[in-house]
Amino acid sequence: MNRGRIYISDEVKIMTQEQGFTIGVDLGGTNLRIAAYTRDAGLLDTILLPTRLAAGCEAVVEDMCGAIIALKDRFDSQYELAGIGVGTPGPLELPAGRLHNPPNLPGWDGFDLRCALEKKLQQTVIVESDANLAALAECVLGRGRTMGVDSLCMLTLGTGVGNGIILGGKIFAGAAGMAGEAGHATIYPDGPLCPCGNHGCLEMYASATAVVRTASQRIAAGLAPALGGKTWSARTLAEAAFAGNPDAKQIYTDAGRALGIGLATLVNTLQLPLYVVGGGLVQAWELLKPAIFEELHHRSYVWRLVEPNSALARHNPRGTTHVLPAELGPDAGLLGACILPFTANGQSSSKS
Amino acid sequence: MNRGRIYISDEVKIMTQEQGFTIGVDLGGTNLRIAAYTRDAGLLDTILLPTRLAAGCEAVVEDMCGAIIALKDRFDSQYELAGIGVGTPGPLELPAGRLHNPPNLPGWDGFDLRCALEKKLQQTVIVESDANLAALAECVLGRGRTMGVDSLCMLTLGTGVGNGIILGGKIFAGAAGMAGEAGHATIYPDGPLCPCGNHGCLEMYASATAVVRTASQRIAAGLAPALGGKTWSARTLAEAAFAGNPDAKQIYTDAGRALGIGLATLVNTLQLPLYVVGGGLVQAWELLKPAIFEELHHRSYVWRLVEPNSALARHNPRGTTHVLPAELGPDAGLLGACILPFTANGQSSSKS
Repeated sequence: MNRGRIYISDEVKIMTQEQGFTIGVDLGGTNLRIAAYTRDAGLLDTILLPTRLAAGCEAVVEDMCGAIIALKDRFDSQYELAGIGVGTPGPLELPAGRLHNPPNLPGWDGFDLRCALEKKLQQTVIVESDANLAALAECVLGRGRTMGVDSLCMLTLGTGVGNGIILGGKIFAGAAGMAGEAGHATIYPDGPLCPCGNHGCLEMYASATAVVRTASQRIAAGLAPALGGKTWSARTLAEAAFAGNPDAKQIYTDAGRALGIGLATLVNTLQLPLYVVGGGLVQAWELLKPAIFEELHHRSYVWRLVEPNSALARHNPRGTTHVLPAELGPDAGLLGACILPFTANGQSSSKS
Repeated sequence: MNRGRIYISDEVKIMTQEQGFTIGVDLGGTNLRIAAYTRDAGLLDTILLPTRLAAGCEAVVEDMCGAIIALKDRFDSQYELAGIGVGTPGPLELPAGRLHNPPNLPGWDGFDLRCALEKKLQQTVIVESDANLAALAECVLGRGRTMGVDSLCMLTLGTGVGNGIILGGKIFAGAAGMAGEAGHATIYPDGPLCPCGNHGCLEMYASATAVVRTASQRIAAGLAPALGGKTWSARTLAEAAFAGNPDAKQIYTDAGRALGIGLATLVNTLQLPLYVVGGGLVQAWELLKPAIFEELHHRSYVWRLVEPNSALARHNPRGTTHVLPAELGPDAGLLGACILPFTANGQSSSKS
């Protein structure tokens, strides 16, 4: 009977939340996106602003709060505000909501983002790192939903390699919110120096920045004759590779190889039901894919036991591990900020 | 009020369990250890038997059940039996309790250990992999208890490198029980071939087997003049290193380096409050330690942010990450099997 009562009270809570709306913020080094969201309608409206980094963190917080209040005023006659979620580049300390020397927000070291927002808005705000929010969105609204799982590990291949881990529908934050930095897992111990101070991080091989850098290095060294003397972007390199350019293909194969080595360790360590690869570079998924799965097969006996065609998978489909491209596009982080209040993860504010 | 009632019923359950005893089994490739345990008294009695691998898995199950029944008969007039926990070398599929080609139990591929035990005992049995149980014991009774945390990642340096992850006091099993194989994380992608099929696994550098193999390879190649032509064990190598033998020291430094690279990735990925290094090789902790922390410092910016002397640690001690040697000795796995029924992890039987 106890159980029955609790079930009913959960139901009521979920219904209230479903009728409500949330406001999500995606704080980037270049742009600031603020959106209102409901579960039924998705993104109701989005405001795009430049991130005025030169004006200082307080000015950026001012811009954020202005847009949040504008959206709140526009929608709170129709819906009840269920919460405000904010995604920021890390490293972000939780539950405090304090930034620690974030490379994409120069000058914000030690800034207590959650405090500043809550002070100005006079309202609870949940702050999370942007890669964690992309993973949350992919779990709840993207590939996780399609696959029917509530746990996943996501790698976001963009300027860097972001990472987020979702367990049981909630962001896994670690002791101080610093979990989910597998983009800085060591792949080749003697590899190039990463801005994080390590050598041979995954980010140095499998980000958009990395493929472009590899191309120019190989051109300069005379190792990529098929790339000529052109200047390449990740996109034009992928186009050339899809068109059959062997040097462009090799660059994506090498990126896929690094990803496969990193994913093999993540599968061996956590054996989650789903690993998702997202971010801009995943448009080249078909170029990355063969090397990813070759390395996974070689380097993870766990993968060989649990991959979708294994004997185990045939008798125990829920025990299988999948590695798949993301379903959501560049809105993943913003969507994650919007759904964060619904998941009631709460680590940003519940403990402090 | 609901909450009150549930709280009371949990209390009652915990009290009943505390008055009861459990039986734990540590199934190894050489020995079989079966113990009776209470929370107050610890190990009440332990039975040691050889593992009769040549006689087949059914014979070993017969031996196990004989000892379990003997302990049950001896103690069930004094205590109530709260459960039976069994630790086995992996890979072990959960919740089924089925072994998948376990290297240390040749001929047991596909054997449904839990089913066989439950059929013979006519009683529920919880089966887990031995490295997970060592981690559970270290969390509940060892370093985790000392440090006041309920989540940790343990690496057990023995014949191989075992791994177990405990989150919130429970074993993290992954989708099919295959999590916790960071012993097969790739450290050097072009390193030596591991029996698991991968090249350059952590196990190829930081196990007792690995340091002995490294010594003989270096002697054969003339790279370790200070080791002479002797035959070395992990223990004698450690003794020589402690006595100042430079080649023996170098072998432990290299093992520590591989451990540090692996731990840096584990800290970046999960940022748990505690990483524990156990197993026989940890007697050489002081030899491994400098290289472990040098690599951690170099390779994990997360570590630099959250290590015990960091600025974050000073204002947020609960957000800190520690890397420490295990407290429990070779009984860790057996103790883990004994306490498994108390933790009610249940993944071995609750879903199947």
